[in-house]
Amino acid sequence: MTASSTDNRKRHTVRADGRLVDELREVTITRNWINTAEGSALVEFGNTRVLVAASLTAGVPRWLKGQGRGWVTAEYAMLPRATDSRNTRESVKGKLGGRTHEISRLIGRSLRAVIDLEKLGENTLVLDCDVLQADGGTRTASITGAYVALADAIDKGRSTGIIPAANNPIKDSIAAISVGIVDGEPVLDLPYVEDSSAETDMNVVMTGSGQFVEVQGTAEGAPFDRAELGHLLDLAAKGCTDLTRIQTEVLAK
Amino acid sequence: MTASSTDNRKRHTVRADGRLVDELREVTITRNWINTAEGSALVEFGNTRVLVAASLTAGVPRWLKGQGRGWVTAEYAMLPRATDSRNTRESVKGKLGGRTHEISRLIGRSLRAVIDLEKLGENTLVLDCDVLQADGGTRTASITGAYVALADAIDKGRSTGIIPAANNPIKDSIAAISVGIVDGEPVLDLPYVEDSSAETDMNVVMTGSGQFVEVQGTAEGAPFDRAELGHLLDLAAKGCTDLTRIQTEVLAK
Amino acid sequence: MTASSTDNRKRHTVRADGRLVDELREVTITRNWINTAEGSALVEFGNTRVLVAASLTAGVPRWLKGQGRGWVTAEYAMLPRATDSRNTRESVKGKLGGRTHEISRLIGRSLRAVIDLEKLGENTLVLDCDVLQADGGTRTASITGAYVALADAIDKGRSTGIIPAANNPIKDSIAAISVGIVDGEPVLDLPYVEDSSAETDMNVVMTGSGQFVEVQGTAEGAPFDRAELGHLLDLAAKGCTDLTRIQTEVLAK
Amino acid sequence: MTASSTDNRKRHTVRADGRLVDELREVTITRNWINTAEGSALVEFGNTRVLVAASLTAGVPRWLKGQGRGWVTAEYAMLPRATDSRNTRESVKGKLGGRTHEISRLIGRSLRAVIDLEKLGENTLVLDCDVLQADGGTRTASITGAYVALADAIDKGRSTGIIPAANNPIKDSIAAISVGIVDGEPVLDLPYVEDSSAETDMNVVMTGSGQFVEVQGTAEGAPFDRAELGHLLDLAAKGCTDLTRIQTEVLAK
Amino acid sequence: MTASSTDNRKRHTVRADGRLVDELREVTITRNWINTAEGSALVEFGNTRVLVAASLTAGVPRWLKGQGRGWVTAEYAMLPRATDSRNTRESVKGKLGGRTHEISRLIGRSLRAVIDLEKLGENTLVLDCDVLQADGGTRTASITGAYVALADAIDKGRSTGIIPAANNPIKDSIAAISVGIVDGEPVLDLPYVEDSSAETDMNVVMTGSGQFVEVQGTAEGAPFDRAELGHLLDLAAKGCTDLTRIQTEVLAK
Amino acid sequence: MTASSTDNRKRHTVRADGRLVDELREVTITRNWINTAEGSALVEFGNTRVLVAASLTAGVPRWLKGQGRGWVTAEYAMLPRATDSRNTRESVKGKLGGRTHEISRLIGRSLRAVIDLEKLGENTLVLDCDVLQADGGTRTASITGAYVALADAIDKGRSTGIIPAANNPIKDSIAAISVGIVDGEPVLDLPYVEDSSAETDMNVVMTGSGQFVEVQGTAEGAPFDRAELGHLLDLAAKGCTDLTRIQTEVLAK
Repeated sequence: MTASSTDNRKRHTVRADGRLVDELREVTITRNWINTAEGSALVEFGNTRVLVAASLTAGVPRWLKGQGRGWVTAEYAMLPRATDSRNTRESVKGKLGGRTHEISRLIGRSLRAVIDLEKLGENTLVLDCDVLQADGGTRTASITGAYVALADAIDKGRSTGIIPAANNPIKDSIAAISVGIVDGEPVLDLPYVEDSSAETDMNVVMTGSGQFVEVQGTAEGAPFDRAELGHLLDLAAKGCTDLTRIQTEVLAK
Repeated sequence: MTASSTDNRKRHTVRADGRLVDELREVTITRNWINTAEGSALVEFGNTRVLVAASLTAGVPRWLKGQGRGWVTAEYAMLPRATDSRNTRESVKGKLGGRTHEISRLIGRSLRAVIDLEKLGENTLVLDCDVLQADGGTRTASITGAYVALADAIDKGRSTGIIPAANNPIKDSIAAISVGIVDGEPVLDLPYVEDSSAETDMNVVMTGSGQFVEVQGTAEGAPFDRAELGHLLDLAAKGCTDLTRIQTEVLAK
Repeated sequence: MTASSTDNRKRHTVRADGRLVDELREVTITRNWINTAEGSALVEFGNTRVLVAASLTAGVPRWLKGQGRGWVTAEYAMLPRATDSRNTRESVKGKLGGRTHEISRLIGRSLRAVIDLEKLGENTLVLDCDVLQADGGTRTASITGAYVALADAIDKGRSTGIIPAANNPIKDSIAAISVGIVDGEPVLDLPYVEDSSAETDMNVVMTGSGQFVEVQGTAEGAPFDRAELGHLLDLAAKGCTDLTRIQTEVLAK
Repeated sequence: MTASSTDNRKRHTVRADGRLVDELREVTITRNWINTAEGSALVEFGNTRVLVAASLTAGVPRWLKGQGRGWVTAEYAMLPRATDSRNTRESVKGKLGGRTHEISRLIGRSLRAVIDLEKLGENTLVLDCDVLQADGGTRTASITGAYVALADAIDKGRSTGIIPAANNPIKDSIAAISVGIVDGEPVLDLPYVEDSSAETDMNVVMTGSGQFVEVQGTAEGAPFDRAELGHLLDLAAKGCTDLTRIQTEVLAK
Repeated sequence: MTASSTDNRKRHTVRADGRLVDELREVTITRNWINTAEGSALVEFGNTRVLVAASLTAGVPRWLKGQGRGWVTAEYAMLPRATDSRNTRESVKGKLGGRTHEISRLIGRSLRAVIDLEKLGENTLVLDCDVLQADGGTRTASITGAYVALADAIDKGRSTGIIPAANNPIKDSIAAISVGIVDGEPVLDLPYVEDSSAETDMNVVMTGSGQFVEVQGTAEGAPFDRAELGHLLDLAAKGCTDLTRIQTEVLAK
Repeated sequence: MTASSTDNRKRHTVRADGRLVDELREVTITRNWINTAEGSALVEFGNTRVLVAASLTAGVPRWLKGQGRGWVTAEYAMLPRATDSRNTRESVKGKLGGRTHEISRLIGRSLRAVIDLEKLGENTLVLDCDVLQADGGTRTASITGAYVALADAIDKGRSTGIIPAANNPIKDSIAAISVGIVDGEPVLDLPYVEDSSAETDMNVVMTGSGQFVEVQGTAEGAPFDRAELGHLLDLAAKGCTDLTRIQTEVLAK
């Protein structure tokens, strides 16, 4: 739903929370919210609040040793009371659920897409994304915040020499946003109340230079057609551009 | 890669296995390959060989009881020697890996998209997709074969009366195919050798009537742009149309 | 180490962080830091930062049903990067460690000591204590913060009627502090750097009215004698009195 | 039940499936049913259908290193819908059941009995036996088919040089069959319907030269005496002789 | 090895521990070694020492409810230092090993063979067999001792009325012994030193009236022939007769 | 409750089992109850019966290698029928419970307090404490018995040379006892019946020379005050003195 393809009436429809269809929730990213990690960020998309910690350590997993390349991976989890009703801890269940696995893998792939693993050297970056409060969009907030924590961890690594100072392993920035069709209308950045009633739900991960890294669209209700897919991608591109600007500002401080 | 957007030279480029860029591998679906399940199919996409069993049982999981609706779910797994080197069994490891979770969830969501759960009644369909031999595209073969096994299981259920004969819970057929960009060229139905070198890899699930149920695109190498995404969707639509025809023929026997 | 038993020189010895031997770190308790739980608190003892969520739900575990009594329990956990080096998640390991079990049980017992389970009715309170940043004293901060979150959850329960408004299940307040012998000197509220070199380490849980609920003293280096034990208990009583005052002020807001 | 010890009437009694008491079900062994493994076989005893894959890899488990000997082991599993009602996957349960353990160990021991581990060299053979369809006798079909897959894997190993071509580690062939007492009558090769009503159930593993490797007899109903044990062993010897002939023919192709 | 088939020289060959080939180790069974269980026995076969506790409780597992029949099951385990080198606890590993499963199942089946489950009523008997010191024959000692503990638990159940006093669910006694071929010689009741060098190893479970319940023979070294099998069964029958006499004497006290 | 602070009436009050308030149950420690371990003891506090095995092995856990120091650790467990009703095995549940973890850690810490790890050399001592029959005080009996088993294992180590004979790593002896307030009265060494009704329950671990290693007091009912704490410590000191004498006598034999 680009500005051009939407008539003014729709463009100005306010949603339950007063936002326009192509408007992000209030986004804040607080750098170094904890001081124990090489990089960290508390990222908020409205009421969604995720603490990201970036751990940089020398060495790589066994299967990667001796190849001169580093590794970037992520682990996503939700505190038991991040949601309105309490969930049993996965540590208590004794196993990770499918959703946790899926999102952890998505975050890891997304961040790897903008990192030059050769330039990282034989070092490992782990991005821990722990959802403290959940209101939709936890995976996209995680990716967006993880980029900031990772940038700080790499800076630190270059200043301490773990990563050669001459190497900048960051090829581009990365951000992610959810889009979906709610009551027949494509909308940007869905809170839980919209997400749970969306017919189609899509998460899009884009580089700062505007290319796609991940497109994951799912018909929750009715299947969608090519035109709807196009509108959703337009909205997502708009949202990622906004997020990229916020990341840049935060990292410039 | 629509016919119109490709010049003849490229259109006729043969791949390592001699196929055109928009050509499926040989696809065969053998119904009722085992006789213990309500429906079953041995589905082959080239050397990829998946055994799907559809189990129909009265009753639904606890969280769904008393709502007059049924449930459809799937479990995907790979035999340890389906691949060129042996993988440790997940039953021996004591836990499911992230990939297994992710694909199982994808198959379940895809099949649910074409089933009217109210018409299914308080019954459960489980689709077990076990990969006997893997050569790329195991998740898309699973979805495509699962539709055939599920159709047979529903038929059986309607004839035995578990599902009221007057109800046809099947709203549409469903098929899935992989597409990707290999050496800069969008291609359809990637075997392992192409998949492992693809820059972008996408799995597309479509209904028989040509709408999207899932679009999952991942940049493995370089990020992709909107035009490349369009070419890949064109190829996928072509492939799913071909698969729908094969499903229809098989079920007509 | 009461004021009376310490000469002025020692009383004024500053520690590495500038505190007196009987002085708490800066303690802050932020109520309702998340809005998804019935009660919550972000509690900070210096750099130690714990998020406590109190979940109140109708019903009790099976083994307690039909006895007219409620239940209070706790789960403690640490984010992987709460510490200077990253710890593997217990959800990834697939099991809880001994330390986690031990502290969860301590927190649960401590809170139960001040709750009248009959007056709570057949309801369950779960206190989730997640350490976001760790610098010693995480279990004592958890107990101290959990009391605040629990008080709010009980208030909410009485206003919504889950707990009869006429019943106040809270018998007393509860707080906890660590004490230890460092370089031969008994000190209050040990940060990590002191804790790791302490000869004796003790955690003391006390009611607002000044009685003991738990005393857990461990000789890490040399065994301790009765006189040293007495000094440590004096310090702990002083610290718990200070914490009780802070809890009272926070809950009065 | 040797021919000599049975009168003609009984000898000609047909069973529910029309077989004589000492007659095998139709047995087929398809070599190289999958092409990913060093050796493989689809073995069928009537409706029982097992896929065996033999994996040959250089190296041995840690506890065997440096002793100049190889290792042969087996893993048995059943697909969830191999049986008339669906079984939960052991990977989903997170642990192997006792029956799985027991049969895996039996298959491994049986195959090791005919392999000269010194001549195998420091190499490991894993026999994966996955039951695709179960109708009694899955463990005996597994052993019988595993011998064929193993023979092919060893051939391959000798031709590629992992195993010195001069060494033939195979000392003898091995086959297995079930026998039991059903309605007072000793019978050979029990399908599920007979097995579930047998008073005594016995699995016998024999070498091609006619000696015993395993005898496992269990009184399911009434205990059995020495004479009955003798009859069962006679029947088993007859069955194993037949299976040995089939194995030899299959491997001669 | 019947008396008749052995010449006197062999018959009198003493083994490493001074026993004749058909002689049991010293067997002692101490009833009610612990007083917490309905029945218990400390059973010793030489240095092998197993504590068996029989638990009788009203009710049956869910799958057996409402059928008017009881259940008998067993759990076998070994203390970590029952053996000369320490084994990791299965509770620490987080799973039961194959050997544990196999032996537990064998003990349960063996005891069920002599119990009339209808007469037991809807009650459950669990036989816990914990090996305190192991020197070969732990499974046969477990079965032999479990019969004594079970007899006491049933007596207690009939006197307290859980089991109707008029019902005696015990159909026969049960005992078990190991036999094997060591240095070419069939011998009875193998201690660890003989067991570890045996060519063939067999465990035989027999009723007090002399019939077979289980015969489990395994060629550890060379395969065995029918004659050797016969000798082993003769020895086992002799051993079980001796054990039956000991059980009778113990229970008569 | 020192002799001086108790009037004669109370001092002579007999408890349910006829003991005075400061009287131990009958304590027996049988050395070398099993012969497979380097040291072992069957320790009995009244009806509580614990088998302790001390395993001494060369080498230390990975995290301690190369530091010239040894390690002492403990594992505590209870047989399923050590108690009046049967508990599910932790090996069957697939995980250790919190209580098991907590007690194992307590035993390990207590024993380490009297061992000079440098003098032990790079060797590991594991104390396995398995409760065969439980009647209160299982953790204190374990610690008390573990000291005897450990002393024997160290003696053996010094005689075989694993530990240099010139090094005596034992700095002091260690014993433990429970105390509690039952019906308002401080009492020593609580059996289950007293323990389950105690208002306050405390476990105290002391060296042979009378200093504290662990003090763990818990208010099960009403909180306790400083005076009550003092009485309990007096009783514990008396009990540990008695246990030290028994340990000395047993080791002198």
